Amino acid sequence: MQREIHLANRPKGLPTMETFNFVEKPMPELKDHEVLVRTLYVSVDPYMRGRMIDAKSYIPPFKLDEVITGGVVGEVTKSTSESFKTGDFVVGNLNWAEYTAASEQEVRKIDPTIAPITTHLGILGMTGLTAYFGLLDIGKPQEGETVVVSGAAGAVGSVVGQIAKMKGAKVIGIAGTQEKIEYLKNELGFDEAVNYKLDSFKEDLAKAAADGVDVYFDNVGGEVTDAVFTLLNKHARIALCGAISSYNKDGQDYGPRLQSTMIKTSALMKGFTVGDYAADFATASTDLGKWLSEGKLKYEETIVEGFENIPDAFLGLFDGTNLGKQLVKVADYETTNR
Amino acid sequence: MQREIHLANRPKGLPTMETFNFVEKPMPELKDHEVLVRTLYVSVDPYMRGRMIDAKSYIPPFKLDEVITGGVVGEVTKSTSESFKTGDFVVGNLNWAEYTAASEQEVRKIDPTIAPITTHLGILGMTGLTAYFGLLDIGKPQEGETVVVSGAAGAVGSVVGQIAKMKGAKVIGIAGTQEKIEYLKNELGFDEAVNYKLDSFKEDLAKAAADGVDVYFDNVGGEVTDAVFTLLNKHARIALCGAISSYNKDGQDYGPRLQSTMIKTSALMKGFTVGDYAADFATASTDLGKWLSEGKLKYEETIVEGFENIPDAFLGLFDGTNLGKQLVKVADYETTNR
Repeated sequence: MQREIHLANRPKGLPTMETFNFVEKPMPELKDHEVLVRTLYVSVDPYMRGRMIDAKSYIPPFKLDEVITGGVVGEVTKSTSESFKTGDFVVGNLNWAEYTAASEQEVRKIDPTIAPITTHLGILGMTGLTAYFGLLDIGKPQEGETVVVSGAAGAVGSVVGQIAKMKGAKVIGIAGTQEKIEYLKNELGFDEAVNYKLDSFKEDLAKAAADGVDVYFDNVGGEVTDAVFTLLNKHARIALCGAISSYNKDGQDYGPRLQSTMIKTSALMKGFTVGDYAADFATASTDLGKWLSEGKLKYEETIVEGFENIPDAFLGLFDGTNLGKQLVKVADYETTNR
Repeated sequence: MQREIHLANRPKGLPTMETFNFVEKPMPELKDHEVLVRTLYVSVDPYMRGRMIDAKSYIPPFKLDEVITGGVVGEVTKSTSESFKTGDFVVGNLNWAEYTAASEQEVRKIDPTIAPITTHLGILGMTGLTAYFGLLDIGKPQEGETVVVSGAAGAVGSVVGQIAKMKGAKVIGIAGTQEKIEYLKNELGFDEAVNYKLDSFKEDLAKAAADGVDVYFDNVGGEVTDAVFTLLNKHARIALCGAISSYNKDGQDYGPRLQSTMIKTSALMKGFTVGDYAADFATASTDLGKWLSEGKLKYEETIVEGFENIPDAFLGLFDGTNLGKQLVKVADYETTNR
């Protein structure tokens, strides 16, 4: 037997432990061209909140009383595929389960000698690609411009700021704790970092962005974004990656209308998901891997241990407790096969 | 002596007749390289509302107790410029006055034999260029896509819809009277037209846009736009040209936050003003002139007579009374010179 986590009900507002249901299931059987993947690390991501409600979106909603799926790094413990053998490390969108039977198209082999296997859920995975495309394709930062990143100490935001620095921009991060502020400035080399939980936030941001804002990479939406909008320069670009401040609002979230400001500044705003750029993943992965190996990109992981703690780790995303990428370690890999 | 219209005070909410002050002034004296322009037609445009308040924007605000400026077609009655002679027709951003002294850089000669002189304030002027660039550079309609235009029976909207039809799109106009709805469908060849003042507006729009919305050219903002947003297709493009529904709101205008929808659909939204495209005016003017001469573009003008009626014509824009381009005829041209 092995454990899976199912969606027990569709949350209104903030999900709770009751949103999830732990279910014991028999070990999956393999068909042809499949692998049995033992889960080592699970990625918990804010976008998954969107899949918990029954609404039209870029990916279908999770089904009630079925297993939740997300980013997983694991090892192959059984294979009916010629492309994979026992002991291979793989990454894929797999079950929140201790074991997943996956087709060979659903997983990609990863090389543990180049970078830690967890990076394929973070800086070398969807997280890094999301930062890369949103910033470079939509934000297009130019040397000397001011780039603002919200959710700056999160998995995506921290990569965005570092790439923007490489492009010669002045980078301002927005985060919610003093620890994160210091991390952004002292560890990641952000020019400025502003705490949105302080009463002085708007003034602090205006002071940090004294030359206005040319690029805004938005992970959070809401009132943080309202403050950034008052500082937009002519021809500003806004990459909409996430709106975590809205995800747990029950019903419509209201705010100042943005259109007049966008007309006055000829601003461009674009929503995106990393899947929009699938055709260019290879180039981007090469760039990210190169920057990582050259020491130009740093990353932080917040790792919780234990399969049973996946829901907690997910809920923690909405408290802003994680620094960098939030992962759950489910098991050690079995050294017997190498 | 001649008359000018000055900004008497900065309006809060809807401007009134008290916003304007008629002032008698001596006939302007010419310096070197100038022309004296006798005003024939004045253009009144929604964007001018924005210049009446003291706020940072893409053009500086009108000054209190000084003359208001806007699009004017006139004839040269005196010239110290070698480029212009008495009797020439010119267009420029000139005073709301019976006569303006303008430098030779401020006016452009127009040829009355190619198209009526008023078209240079409308379909062959800033209005046509605004429609052209917003639709083609931001909206980029493809054959078979659905294009929605708000303020569709206005000067800009009516051109947008016709160009979108030329590009093979299905075109849906949104307007506020039954007369306009019929004009859009029967005269301009829109596929559908929906009246936003009817209780059934949302249902009517959803029915008209049964395949969703790929391009939205927005002249109005507010609740009309909220309704369009519920219908966006993946990779929708939104050209923000105006937000007339907000212009007369005193204080901040609130509405549903748009970010989550934009992320789900990977939508692009861009504000613009026609000045952003100054480098490409020549190409666009050639296209518009060609389409007009080939009968592919139709236009309507609503012309009020009399200098004293300029404020009224301007205020009428916010009631939605005008069909097509709203102009004020100030004087007949003097035939003695040709």
